[in-house]
Amino acid sequence: MAAEENIIIIGKKPVIDYVLATIVLFNEGYDEVIIRGQGSNVSKAVDVYNALVHRLQDSVELVGVSIDSVERGRRLIPVIEIRVRRKIA
Amino acid sequence: MAAEENIIIIGKKPVIDYVLATIVLFNEGYDEVIIRGQGSNVSKAVDVYNALVHRLQDSVELVGVSIDSVERGRRLIPVIEIRVRRKIA
Ligand SMILES: [Zn+2]
Repeated sequence: MAAEENIIIIGKKPVIDYVLATIVLFNEGYDEVIIRGQGSNVSKAVDVYNALVHRLQDSVELVGVSIDSVERGRRLIPVIEIRVRRKIA
Repeated sequence: MAAEENIIIIGKKPVIDYVLATIVLFNEGYDEVIIRGQGSNVSKAVDVYNALVHRLQDSVELVGVSIDSVERGRRLIPVIEIRVRRKIA
């Protein structure tokens, strides 16, 4: 398992798809997953986080949120990385 | 000065307007300012943060980022609050 495998990149799919992808990673044995969104997908990443918490409730916790920018051509676009951890009951 | 006065609510104005509004609050004596965005303005809030850092560089630091949801009608919409602190050189 490569170090970067536990990253969910938010794109054009429905929010629920990314929620389920996160749960799959937890079930595969990852304790932590990073939900990453760029540009207009920054808000969608927060949507995914909220839907994940709604679904897993006390089984998931927020480790931390980082914000940054990346260059796309000559523009700087916003980036968010939301790190969540599975809590073992 | 009321407790809530140091919040910048991100809306439809250009990013630079919110950057300048944050700097005004710092200059008025607030050490910390919260940059808050809801819905599609979540990514714009990160834009404002990045532009603020670009402008103030070492004079500003990130205190923390919180993410949550609020109800708008029957929908849950994402919220971000980015807390920044002015660093005294
Ligand atoms: Zn520059």
